[in-house]
Amino acid sequence: MLQIPALEKLVHELSRLPGIGPKTAQRLAYYILKSKNSYPEKLSESLLRVQSEVHTCPECFNYTDRAICKFCEDPHRNSEILCLVEEPSDISRIESSGAYRGRYHVLHGVISPLEGINAKDLKINELMARLAASQNENNEKPIREIIFAFDADLEGDTTALYLTKSLQGKNVKISRIAHGIPMGSDIDFIDDRTMGRAMENRVEL
Amino acid sequence: MLQIPALEKLVHELSRLPGIGPKTAQRLAYYILKSKNSYPEKLSESLLRVQSEVHTCPECFNYTDRAICKFCEDPHRNSEILCLVEEPSDISRIESSGAYRGRYHVLHGVISPLEGINAKDLKINELMARLAASQNENNEKPIREIIFAFDADLEGDTTALYLTKSLQGKNVKISRIAHGIPMGSDIDFIDDRTMGRAMENRVEL
Repeated sequence: MLQIPALEKLVHELSRLPGIGPKTAQRLAYYILKSKNSYPEKLSESLLRVQSEVHTCPECFNYTDRAICKFCEDPHRNSEILCLVEEPSDISRIESSGAYRGRYHVLHGVISPLEGINAKDLKINELMARLAASQNENNEKPIREIIFAFDADLEGDTTALYLTKSLQGKNVKISRIAHGIPMGSDIDFIDDRTMGRAMENRVEL
Repeated sequence: MLQIPALEKLVHELSRLPGIGPKTAQRLAYYILKSKNSYPEKLSESLLRVQSEVHTCPECFNYTDRAICKFCEDPHRNSEILCLVEEPSDISRIESSGAYRGRYHVLHGVISPLEGINAKDLKINELMARLAASQNENNEKPIREIIFAFDADLEGDTTALYLTKSLQGKNVKISRIAHGIPMGSDIDFIDDRTMGRAMENRVEL
């Protein structure tokens, strides 16, 4: 439609981004064309820099630009607790709460039969190897607890169930973050499933 | 927050795009990191390619990758009618209607005192020069009509008013595209201003 191959190619590449449809991609491409201060070069540079500098940590699979990520490196963190998350972006959400000082392990997805994602596509074998290595008798601080911090949806529940089974008999406590009424919210506006969970998981005072 | 400079830079550059907030930019950056088939290189390449290949047509200021754009080059188009648009993207909207076969002139914006955009920031001097050149006595097909195809908002109206004054006495007919009820729409749901315009501009049958 635009009949300018270079522009059509840019629209095509931009429309591959999540949440960016062809119409938005076209708007972005026109914005980029109109932009000043060599914005296309800067964006292009930062794309290549991310590609070359950022990789996953060999220990926990979080993103990092060092040999090992800052959470794995930090000697003040508790190595006996491991928090399992779906994506690296979940870590910053947990960190900013300040409520957790253990280590992390990123699965890079959840089990989703509908999308064809199986346990072997995730960093689960790596988790098992990490747990076994930590339980080596020479290690004074083996992993004692694994916390599941998955999204509160079907895929998160499936993954939690699968991992609970896989971790049986491995001498490790398993927990998951609590589901319930969000802080500061009005009980009137809570949906049925959340209220159900909140009742079920009520805490004795 | 991410504490990976390369990733933070990419989020920063992405969040400069229109409609992309910091949260969306972060989601896009993570998507780019996770992407396969060297997507960052492809996107980076297409950004640089657009930057180097695409420029504005010296005649009408539409975007093109040739010396002169295809609308200015096409000998079958009517050189006696000129359609004025705000942005190059408006041209494809008009073209796909198939209702116009004249030439174009892109202003690259509209007069907007609030945003500090004055007449001199637009391709208005270029329009005047183009009109004058076409009215050279050796030219058999001077511009006889100029159509304003601006957005139906305050800035569009201001620009139309300014140009109407500037073009007075220049021996050229001035028109603007019609405002009224969109085709296929239900009269019940039309807003007051549109209905007002539709009444005012009623067409005798």
